[in-house]
Amino acid sequence: MTVYLHEGDLPDDLDLGPDVAIDSETMGLRFRRDPLCVVQLSSGDGNAHVVRLNRPAYDCPNLKRLLTDPAVTKIFHFGRFDIGMFLLHLGVETRPVYCTKIASKLARTYTDRHGLKDVVRETVGVDLSKAQQSSDWGAAELTQAQLDYAASDVLYLHAARAKLDMMLAREGRTELAARCFDFLPDRSALDLAGWDEIDIFAHS
Amino acid sequence: MTVYLHEGDLPDDLDLGPDVAIDSETMGLRFRRDPLCVVQLSSGDGNAHVVRLNRPAYDCPNLKRLLTDPAVTKIFHFGRFDIGMFLLHLGVETRPVYCTKIASKLARTYTDRHGLKDVVRETVGVDLSKAQQSSDWGAAELTQAQLDYAASDVLYLHAARAKLDMMLAREGRTELAARCFDFLPDRSALDLAGWDEIDIFAHS
Ligand SMILES: Nc1ncnc2c1ncn2[C@@H]1O[C@H](COP(=O)(O)O)[C@@H](OP(=O)(O)O)[C@H]1O
Ligand SMILES: Nc1ncnc2c1ncn2[C@@H]1O[C@H](COP(=O)(O)O)[C@@H](OP(=O)(O)O)[C@H]1O
Repeated sequence: MTVYLHEGDLPDDLDLGPDVAIDSETMGLRFRRDPLCVVQLSSGDGNAHVVRLNRPAYDCPNLKRLLTDPAVTKIFHFGRFDIGMFLLHLGVETRPVYCTKIASKLARTYTDRHGLKDVVRETVGVDLSKAQQSSDWGAAELTQAQLDYAASDVLYLHAARAKLDMMLAREGRTELAARCFDFLPDRSALDLAGWDEIDIFAHS
Repeated sequence: MTVYLHEGDLPDDLDLGPDVAIDSETMGLRFRRDPLCVVQLSSGDGNAHVVRLNRPAYDCPNLKRLLTDPAVTKIFHFGRFDIGMFLLHLGVETRPVYCTKIASKLARTYTDRHGLKDVVRETVGVDLSKAQQSSDWGAAELTQAQLDYAASDVLYLHAARAKLDMMLAREGRTELAARCFDFLPDRSALDLAGWDEIDIFAHS
C-alpha cells in the first residue's frame, strides 16, 4: 500500500477510474467554524492519495473536476458531511455519489452499528484504527500516523460497497438506495442553508 | 363551492388540469392497520371532488392514472403520508408532487407552525375548521360535515402554493424545494419499507 501526498490539488495526469472512494478531514464537525483541511481518495487499487488543500483559496481544479464529473461515482462513508464541506469551501455540488453508511442502514437491518469501523469490519474483515480521528488536520506537516489514518478511511470503501450492493440486491432495495444517494447532495445543501438540525420530511 | 361525491373512482370524463390538489382520509395514521377511505381532489376552481374508495379492491383506474400522470403535479399538504397510502393500497408511485408543508418549512422560517390550518390562514387568509379531522371516514354514508371538511382540505392548496412559491423564489430556495419534492415519494417508499421512524440521512 502506498500513500501519495499531494500539496494543494491532485496531479494533472492522475486517472482514478469511474469509482473513487473519498473522505475528508476538517478542523471539526461544525460548518463555517471548522475549515476543510485534507481530502483523501482511492481508485480501489489499494493505494491512497492524500491532498493537503491550501486554505482559504482552495485552488484545486483537478479535485473539483473529479467531484463534479458525472462519469465518476464518488464513494463516501457518511457523505452528507464531506459533500457539505465541498459545497461550502470548493463551491461544487458533488455528484453522483454512493454512501456506505446509507447502504449499511438499508442492508444491515440486524444491527444499529453503521459506523465506518463496524461496516468495514463486517463487510471487508479489516479492523480500522480510529486513533488519529481526532487530531490536528490543519497542521503544516501531517504525521505518518495521520497519513496512514487518512488513507485507511478510503482503502476499503470499494470492497464495502461491493458487499453492501450484493446485500441490497438480495433484499430488493437497490432502487431505494439509489434514490437516497441521489438526494444526498441535496440533503447536504439543506444543511448548509440552515436546515442541518431539521428533518425536512418530518411532520413537525 | 360545489362538492361532488363519487363512488369508487373519479368519473371517466373529468379533466382536472395540470395542477391538482389532493388529500386523503384514512382510519388512522398507521400504515397497514388503517385503511385508506377517501380521496379528495380539486383543480383549483373552488370546487372539490370527493371519492369514496371501494375497499379492499381499490379498483380506481382513473384516480391511479391521475396520480401517476407525469404531466399533472399533485399538490399535497404533508404528502408523505398520502403518497405512502397510495403506494400501499393503490400500488402506484405518485409523481410529480408538491408539498405545502415542505414549502412552508423552507419559506416561513420565522415560525414553527407548519400545520395546514396555520399555512392556509397566513398565506390565503382563510380559517379552516378542523372539527371533522377525527371522524369515521370508513362509514358507508359520509355526513355533510365530513364532505365539507374533506373539501376544505384541498380547496386552498393552489392559493397557498402560489404564495409559498413567491416566497421561495424571493429567498432563493425554489431549486432546494424542487429537490425535496422530487425525493418525497422515495421518502414515502422508505416509510412503507419499514424506515418510517428513521431519518436515513442522519449520522446515527
Ligand atoms: N454529527 C457527527 N457525528 C459524528 N461524526 C460525524 C458527524 N458529522 C460528520 N461526521 C463524520 O463522519 C465520520 C464518522 O462516521 P462513522 O461514525 O459512521 O464512522 C467522521 O469522519 P472521519 O472518519 O473521516 O473522521 C466524522 O468526521
Ligand atoms: N404523524 C402525524 N401526525 C399528525 N398528522 C399526520 C401524521 N402523519 C400524517 N398526518 C396527516 O397530516 C395531516 C395534518 O397535517 P398538519 O398537521 O400539517 O395540518 C392530517 O391529514 P388531514 O388534515 O387530511 O386529516 C394527518 O392525517
